[in-house]
Amino acid sequence: MHLILALALSVFIATSNAASPDQTQALIHKSYVMTLDLWGNAIYQTVELDEIGHDISGSIDRDPFVGTRKGDEYRFTATAADKTTYTYRAKISQEGWIGTADFPDSNHQGVRIQHNFTARLIPARPTASPQTHQYTPGSYSNEFSPLRAPVMTIWPGDSVRTKTIDSGGVDENGNTVALYGNPQTGPFYIAGADIGDVLAIHIKSLRLNRDYADSLDMIVHKAQSTRMASKTSELGRPIRWKLDLKNGLASPENAQGALKTFSVPVKPMLGGLAVAPGNGMPPISSGDTGSFGGNMDFNEVVEGNTIYLSVNQPGALLYLGDAHALQGDGETSQYALETSMAVEFSVSLIKNKEISLPRVESPTHIMTLGQAGSLDDALKLATSGMAQWLAEDYGLSLSESAQVLGAALEYRVVNLAGRSVGLAAKLDKRLLKNILRKPQSQN
Amino acid sequence: MHLILALALSVFIATSNAASPDQTQALIHKSYVMTLDLWGNAIYQTVELDEIGHDISGSIDRDPFVGTRKGDEYRFTATAADKTTYTYRAKISQEGWIGTADFPDSNHQGVRIQHNFTARLIPARPTASPQTHQYTPGSYSNEFSPLRAPVMTIWPGDSVRTKTIDSGGVDENGNTVALYGNPQTGPFYIAGADIGDVLAIHIKSLRLNRDYADSLDMIVHKAQSTRMASKTSELGRPIRWKLDLKNGLASPENAQGALKTFSVPVKPMLGGLAVAPGNGMPPISSGDTGSFGGNMDFNEVVEGNTIYLSVNQPGALLYLGDAHALQGDGETSQYALETSMAVEFSVSLIKNKEISLPRVESPTHIMTLGQAGSLDDALKLATSGMAQWLAEDYGLSLSESAQVLGAALEYRVVNLAGRSVGLAAKLDKRLLKNILRKPQSQN
Amino acid sequence: MHLILALALSVFIATSNAASPDQTQALIHKSYVMTLDLWGNAIYQTVELDEIGHDISGSIDRDPFVGTRKGDEYRFTATAADKTTYTYRAKISQEGWIGTADFPDSNHQGVRIQHNFTARLIPARPTASPQTHQYTPGSYSNEFSPLRAPVMTIWPGDSVRTKTIDSGGVDENGNTVALYGNPQTGPFYIAGADIGDVLAIHIKSLRLNRDYADSLDMIVHKAQSTRMASKTSELGRPIRWKLDLKNGLASPENAQGALKTFSVPVKPMLGGLAVAPGNGMPPISSGDTGSFGGNMDFNEVVEGNTIYLSVNQPGALLYLGDAHALQGDGETSQYALETSMAVEFSVSLIKNKEISLPRVESPTHIMTLGQAGSLDDALKLATSGMAQWLAEDYGLSLSESAQVLGAALEYRVVNLAGRSVGLAAKLDKRLLKNILRKPQSQN
Amino acid sequence: MHLILALALSVFIATSNAASPDQTQALIHKSYVMTLDLWGNAIYQTVELDEIGHDISGSIDRDPFVGTRKGDEYRFTATAADKTTYTYRAKISQEGWIGTADFPDSNHQGVRIQHNFTARLIPARPTASPQTHQYTPGSYSNEFSPLRAPVMTIWPGDSVRTKTIDSGGVDENGNTVALYGNPQTGPFYIAGADIGDVLAIHIKSLRLNRDYADSLDMIVHKAQSTRMASKTSELGRPIRWKLDLKNGLASPENAQGALKTFSVPVKPMLGGLAVAPGNGMPPISSGDTGSFGGNMDFNEVVEGNTIYLSVNQPGALLYLGDAHALQGDGETSQYALETSMAVEFSVSLIKNKEISLPRVESPTHIMTLGQAGSLDDALKLATSGMAQWLAEDYGLSLSESAQVLGAALEYRVVNLAGRSVGLAAKLDKRLLKNILRKPQSQN
Repeated sequence: MHLILALALSVFIATSNAASPDQTQALIHKSYVMTLDLWGNAIYQTVELDEIGHDISGSIDRDPFVGTRKGDEYRFTATAADKTTYTYRAKISQEGWIGTADFPDSNHQGVRIQHNFTARLIPARPTASPQTHQYTPGSYSNEFSPLRAPVMTIWPGDSVRTKTIDSGGVDENGNTVALYGNPQTGPFYIAGADIGDVLAIHIKSLRLNRDYADSLDMIVHKAQSTRMASKTSELGRPIRWKLDLKNGLASPENAQGALKTFSVPVKPMLGGLAVAPGNGMPPISSGDTGSFGGNMDFNEVVEGNTIYLSVNQPGALLYLGDAHALQGDGETSQYALETSMAVEFSVSLIKNKEISLPRVESPTHIMTLGQAGSLDDALKLATSGMAQWLAEDYGLSLSESAQVLGAALEYRVVNLAGRSVGLAAKLDKRLLKNILRKPQSQN
Repeated sequence: MHLILALALSVFIATSNAASPDQTQALIHKSYVMTLDLWGNAIYQTVELDEIGHDISGSIDRDPFVGTRKGDEYRFTATAADKTTYTYRAKISQEGWIGTADFPDSNHQGVRIQHNFTARLIPARPTASPQTHQYTPGSYSNEFSPLRAPVMTIWPGDSVRTKTIDSGGVDENGNTVALYGNPQTGPFYIAGADIGDVLAIHIKSLRLNRDYADSLDMIVHKAQSTRMASKTSELGRPIRWKLDLKNGLASPENAQGALKTFSVPVKPMLGGLAVAPGNGMPPISSGDTGSFGGNMDFNEVVEGNTIYLSVNQPGALLYLGDAHALQGDGETSQYALETSMAVEFSVSLIKNKEISLPRVESPTHIMTLGQAGSLDDALKLATSGMAQWLAEDYGLSLSESAQVLGAALEYRVVNLAGRSVGLAAKLDKRLLKNILRKPQSQN
Repeated sequence: MHLILALALSVFIATSNAASPDQTQALIHKSYVMTLDLWGNAIYQTVELDEIGHDISGSIDRDPFVGTRKGDEYRFTATAADKTTYTYRAKISQEGWIGTADFPDSNHQGVRIQHNFTARLIPARPTASPQTHQYTPGSYSNEFSPLRAPVMTIWPGDSVRTKTIDSGGVDENGNTVALYGNPQTGPFYIAGADIGDVLAIHIKSLRLNRDYADSLDMIVHKAQSTRMASKTSELGRPIRWKLDLKNGLASPENAQGALKTFSVPVKPMLGGLAVAPGNGMPPISSGDTGSFGGNMDFNEVVEGNTIYLSVNQPGALLYLGDAHALQGDGETSQYALETSMAVEFSVSLIKNKEISLPRVESPTHIMTLGQAGSLDDALKLATSGMAQWLAEDYGLSLSESAQVLGAALEYRVVNLAGRSVGLAAKLDKRLLKNILRKPQSQN
Repeated sequence: MHLILALALSVFIATSNAASPDQTQALIHKSYVMTLDLWGNAIYQTVELDEIGHDISGSIDRDPFVGTRKGDEYRFTATAADKTTYTYRAKISQEGWIGTADFPDSNHQGVRIQHNFTARLIPARPTASPQTHQYTPGSYSNEFSPLRAPVMTIWPGDSVRTKTIDSGGVDENGNTVALYGNPQTGPFYIAGADIGDVLAIHIKSLRLNRDYADSLDMIVHKAQSTRMASKTSELGRPIRWKLDLKNGLASPENAQGALKTFSVPVKPMLGGLAVAPGNGMPPISSGDTGSFGGNMDFNEVVEGNTIYLSVNQPGALLYLGDAHALQGDGETSQYALETSMAVEFSVSLIKNKEISLPRVESPTHIMTLGQAGSLDDALKLATSGMAQWLAEDYGLSLSESAQVLGAALEYRVVNLAGRSVGLAAKLDKRLLKNILRKPQSQN
């Protein structure tokens, strides 16, 4: 169940706001994030405001409002699609608003309920051309939360250069700077991102900045047969891996015996990448996952790839962290090769697009990520998500999709280490070239 | 539970068989397949027989026996590991035996039960060097059955050139020659293959011999989310694919719209490959799967790869069929691109080796195939099977396996269209090169 | 996929069969089971034959045919719903027919294929009123097979008094009389039962006839958490239970310690109850399950209850066996309290009714049994099967069903010990009393 | 992974605290909840403090500390089991402490890190005998949170009379007083409850206080087969049920057709019952579940039953809400019959006891509740939890447990409507009577 706050239009106060005829009035446009307090729960909405003289109008999420300004007070009424009206009264200042809303009680005909709200001004885009921002984290979040204050506002097209620390809270210098459990860098507020949009995150660069990673000699419970389970009581010990940054190789430190000369090419990836979960949801552990992304632990979240996530909050509120030097499918060792990382990413927006689950696009493949309580359910989601993609962006009927999937679908197990498991459906983009019917809107 | 027929030694008949001292007696060695009738159920065992004059000895499966020959009758007693004794009396002829066995009743101390048996002589290897056999099928089996008479006896190292028809029973000329439902070519009796061995099947050549394949525009139930399920009632219609044998491309015949110019490179594979299931099991539908292989529908059963299956019956009894021109992971269209095929394969044996599930080896990867009622269970089996492989053939401890798997394991969904689902674990052989501790016994 | 043998009508031979006008010709009606050989696979069909003089007509499964008799030969043509015609020629004798059929090749326009067939006469009902038959088994079946010859023909309304032996093949006297693995009594041919009907089996009496049962101290793998799995290596030992027939109590024999005085009330049940699987399916192990019933191991298959199974073969071919003195939900000990039993059951038929899975009706509840590779899938089937029941027999819309199920549905785990797991949905019949809209057709 | 805060003992400040010899110093004992700030994350611990003159000693969770008081400042050092030392310095006041802790960096030998903390005084038990408290909620929580301030402190043995509102936030008068989504009453702080204890909640009374309940005509996705899913697009509409409080019956309001006279006896239950989740976890949605209980939606959480939950935070922090007038197994209608309720419960503590999952005890049964991403996994947890119960409280070996479970275990599906599903294992207490070896510690 998700919150529907249908807000609507009506003339609230009929006070005259007649401007003097000889005065040219400029249109002022501003954007705000409104925080509505519903019985102690914070609900965020995007407010677009146009002000001409004493007249104001605009929208709250997608519902239009009109009203007036009188001194430092706004009064306005929003109208939802079902004609329900919601009235607001706000004191305004440089930074934002503080006010009271008057809502109908959906359970009691004729009864109305008061709720408080505040609104924070979103700064205007400073320059026309995309910028590259630098952000050095001073603190980290152990939650994917809509409540945490953004560390920075960025705009579509902008890039950010920043760093992530390892899942144990240890930075590139080996210092513990956060609580273990996948502490995240962020959130970044993407101006213009609204509920119902899709945020595309382009991983421009993902580089190791430390010469070791920490892991376990574990096999996750979800990969253990009962036969194996009788032998795994000794497992779960810390294993440190040496990272040879020059040659791009990882090898278990001080390994004796069979793994003495064992090494694997690194493939740096972000285990955690998320937008804030939706209104009505509490903050979510940075170890958990959902349609908002989260601790996906998908070894395709790598340099050069693009991740698409549904926006659930104004500004999307992008978090990233939990980088791995490399990871086999499923993160079967419970901890992958956990390490710190230097990251550069850029963002773009696809307005008014619904995707039911995270999508990843590489130079060669498109991928949909199903996440559920079982692989069987995750596969259903991934497959359906892929059919949705083929229908919307390639114009395929379900019959046509069935033929393409039957001939060319690939599946990968993504994550077995969390509460939900992940499983991805993949399609080779070469095959899609000769069926493309309309431009691929993701790019 | 599988049948343990522990057979044992005792002197059954004390008749003198003193040969004249001046006579040199030649040792004659023969092998038989014994068919024991346990209350109407056929149980197969391998008999190795040594005969010198009137004295006979040998083994039934792995239990030793001794006895005597008197005219055209053998009498002998086998002793199981637990000292239980089993006595046999057989009339012998050129082709084999017919006789009666006397077994203890495991539920009634002191009571013994009579069972009938026959034994068929296995011909001796005709030549020292491997041969290539030609087999043109005259009929097909819709079961993986231990009961079906072998179409040919072959020896380890030998190759066979033969053909398979499509899953609908249609051959390379478009004639219906068998009942639909994955009719199989075979079985081939591999001389020397005993219960407890592993049979390696090397796919030397797998070639399309028809210019079309039949499929459906289906999405299997196991890949449908409830959301998708509400839209799939129209699916399941036959789709014929044109096979361009020269360029190796498949394309839906007469496709209009988005798939008008769609084509996919073919990747011929065998959907069905099986040895007979074990004693105590009835014949199994050629649409079903198990540790014996079966309708695995794994798109890695291709030319150049080797499949390892546990032997459950004397001679293994190898079946093959249900070839696909190509198939996406999971065979999500219920029918892949079903077609006929020209096949050449060779076989080899690994004596006394236990593998818990089918294994596949390609030039680049080793793979284990978990098959179960859910993907979650299949993944556990595949992972445990891979750890078993690493332990036995690479000498890795479970802790070392955990590190290798965590860093490099890959998973693929194999089959979603049958009663069991299949999921494979894969490892890149390049990574295994620097951990190899003992020779890889599979080759 | 299931076999569609559409058979059809046409005048095959135009020979005159004009009877002399003064002769009154009697209508003779007979029923046969036809066994059609499709490339080595036996397909069974019901033939209803009307003969008047030289004219014959009737149906094969539900497709009508007409033809003529000439001496000891029938020639007739059946017409399927799609107008395809199938022609037959049969030599007739007292016991049945032997003949050849001429079918179109569905893959080759204009080509026809010959198949052999035989037909066995079904005896006519001997008396109008229901009879009670006595059957003392002389052998047992380790398969649910359409191929096994019926041990007896019975008619709807008839009862049978017979016995079952335990899952290890041991009878009431402790003698081993069959191969372990759930040997079954039967099959019973129910005259008039056709493919597409439902067979109701009423368990009139189910009585222990031996003072012990055999079990294990096992916890099935499907009930073991990984945590538990590390401790279960010692389990799986045989446990004999003493059955106190007078007081109806079972207690582990020679138990020391905590279970020294432990006892449980017996609740005799049949673990195995099945009709033969459908055409195109091989015989199925008596340890397996399906929509045909099988080794359901459901502790509601008890005296006083009725089980409904879809008929897949002419005569249904009813098997029963694998009785348990009692069993907890799921048969978590792998073997329940396995014992022999005296059974009396009666049968009735519901013509032309489709049920997607086994149903059970007790004096207090209706139940549907979902069987699948996972509990999650089994629950979906059980729930959908219950909604189907409510729709067909109680006239509920899906919305109404949803309300009833949400308020009153019960679920029980049925079986965890087999390849498929079983889960039942239950509804209290008291609640159904005030919603009944049409007569409950099952009774 | 959960937080281990090992705290340890050392003499921090060697200042003399020699009291004058002629002065008798009283021992003062106090209990506190300490809130430690680890990089922005609140971690709660129980502090037990003994003060004699200038000397202080006690424990933090279970680790001992010693130190001194100097004016309004405490300085003390705690020592963990592994000998690591943790030092604290606190300003003290009537209400509690505010201070700084000095912890070793587990990643950097020799480096120490400062963390702030506060501590709140737990009031002493006001009376020796149990009390009954009255609590009228003024606000509700949409989270199971360790962060929310307790509404009341109670002691083991005490009872509370309070009320819950329905899942939509509507109270007994039909007024909306909280945000929908299972708003909870509480939390109650149970003095003396520490991490590692078990809290027993006895439902003394659970009474309907409103004459209607709100539900849906839904079938949850997890109960829909693909076949059913194609027909459920119309479902999900609101259904109001009339509650006949006098006769204890619920019936769909204004039902026409088949359900016109349908009614079901009410069985009031609490859908939500939880203690706060553990340290390191963010607040959890009141719609979610875990080993802490939560939105279990178990129709055995009824008057007369006792629920056992592991304590994860000082004071346990007990929440309750989401009452249902009745609910079928699994809450298949997504919303049960949601209504408000008058509740009386009492609490007791079992110190130092580990239970891996929620337990429920009725007058007739003991039950363990497995909650996981699939029914297959939930069943494993429930079964293992039951074996754990039998081992600890009844002294059964795993072999003995296997026999009892195989003979008598019952399973019920609990919840299908949430992110995790629930499945309970049940045992009849009559059967347990003759195996009881030690007193049942839960009561």
